[in-house]
Amino acid sequence: MFRQLGLIGCGLMGGSFALAVRQAGLVERVVGYSPTARSRDAALALGAIDAACDTPAAAALDSDLVLLALPVASTEATLRAISEALAPEALVMDVGSTKSDVVQAAAAALGGTQLPWFVPAHPIAGKAQAGVAHAQADLYRNCLLVLTPGAVTNPQAITKARQLWQALQCRVREMTPAAHDAGFAAVSHLPHLLAFALMNAITEQPDGADLLALAGPGFRDFSRIAEGDPALWRDVLLANRAQVQHQSALFRAQLDALEHCLEHGDSARLGTLINQASSARAVWKMGS
Amino acid sequence: MFRQLGLIGCGLMGGSFALAVRQAGLVERVVGYSPTARSRDAALALGAIDAACDTPAAAALDSDLVLLALPVASTEATLRAISEALAPEALVMDVGSTKSDVVQAAAAALGGTQLPWFVPAHPIAGKAQAGVAHAQADLYRNCLLVLTPGAVTNPQAITKARQLWQALQCRVREMTPAAHDAGFAAVSHLPHLLAFALMNAITEQPDGADLLALAGPGFRDFSRIAEGDPALWRDVLLANRAQVQHQSALFRAQLDALEHCLEHGDSARLGTLINQASSARAVWKMGS
Repeated sequence: MFRQLGLIGCGLMGGSFALAVRQAGLVERVVGYSPTARSRDAALALGAIDAACDTPAAAALDSDLVLLALPVASTEATLRAISEALAPEALVMDVGSTKSDVVQAAAAALGGTQLPWFVPAHPIAGKAQAGVAHAQADLYRNCLLVLTPGAVTNPQAITKARQLWQALQCRVREMTPAAHDAGFAAVSHLPHLLAFALMNAITEQPDGADLLALAGPGFRDFSRIAEGDPALWRDVLLANRAQVQHQSALFRAQLDALEHCLEHGDSARLGTLINQASSARAVWKMGS
Repeated sequence: MFRQLGLIGCGLMGGSFALAVRQAGLVERVVGYSPTARSRDAALALGAIDAACDTPAAAALDSDLVLLALPVASTEATLRAISEALAPEALVMDVGSTKSDVVQAAAAALGGTQLPWFVPAHPIAGKAQAGVAHAQADLYRNCLLVLTPGAVTNPQAITKARQLWQALQCRVREMTPAAHDAGFAAVSHLPHLLAFALMNAITEQPDGADLLALAGPGFRDFSRIAEGDPALWRDVLLANRAQVQHQSALFRAQLDALEHCLEHGDSARLGTLINQASSARAVWKMGS
């Protein structure tokens, strides 16, 4: 399907993508750039890339498929850096967790013939441990993949992108960047913010270590996402801050309602509110 | 080790305890009471109990080991109900998630010769699905078990309790009821409150169902505890409300600090705060 993948960012997401497209036989060759020599070497050693490049532009050169897998804040600079090297009609995608900012960055950085071939993508996948050492070919299998093309995006590019991710066993969905960012603020970005706040609230207490020694499986699952890559999540939260703050306000109102019941010993109302949450969680199924 | 276990409450926790002590050869016979005939029948069918009882007192009668595995709010009434039937020196324990209230209930309900044989216990175990149908003999294996005996508790009773839970492969720890409740407010009760609030914040939005359709593995883990048994968690949160509200205030201060960074675009400080949370979570290991 593609001759050469130019991978820009050899971390967990990029490395897993390279392994996956290789395993699916979708590319003949993979070249990769990463800001650190350590990641490039690890990606080479893992067989995720065939050759390491010293610059993003070198990875883009002669590639008919380019994937940006770097923190979202670097999207504009990276696209500018590869713009001259990009082949005509090379399909360019990212895997960022926010989309309005990425679309804006692409519009600013790419030329009039290049922008139609940029298809913003967000695979809803990941795991706690960052780094290419944790990359796995099946990271994207059965996951949701959101594309946020715009009016200017070439329909052929969208089709190619859709087919590629479907070949990796993703469920592909198209949304506007705004709807994407509003939705993920609620179900991903805010939960991360809450998990960070809880961890800090515990560790800031004088007996924080003793408290953590008591924690069990519920805490383990609830706090897992607090281990997320700090630079990545800093950028995501800042890029989508208006939506995150909107969702946080809605969350605080529900927390207030629950605490109001505690304050007034309102057992009946508390039971109703908890039941609402518990029932909703019980019927929820990922990917349905 | 024991002749007869009188199980009061045939749910996930009680049923799993019965299966575990049976499997470990610690009891000869198990009789069980549960408020609903359905649970009693299911416990019988599962082989968790040998005989079903119509009242808590009937389950306590002739038992040298009694386990209360009911929502914590019913502790006092249940102890009063079994008080007359209790054999001298029968070891009585509960498995409730709060302890100050349980200790108070026991002091109010049990006589002067019975109270020394009541050893409050809290196994840090569980799973999302409630009910005896989900009971499993290894639910308590490798889990932390907190005992909160008081000055009045008989040392022999404490030793018996400790040995029993250790035989089920639990790590046994003693704490005061107050320290227990303060600690679990931070690492268990507050996380539940937050998970309930997040679920309600999402489902109360007009497009709540659409939002949930976007949610991935991070949301799945973060929100798992929101599926907890509503009656159980209502009682736990109310019983420990002062500590939960104290922890909630600390959490809100940390959330405020993170949101302050979002509001002011303070990337450096945001990165520092997230890094603190991420590092703490990365080194945390359950049970260490």
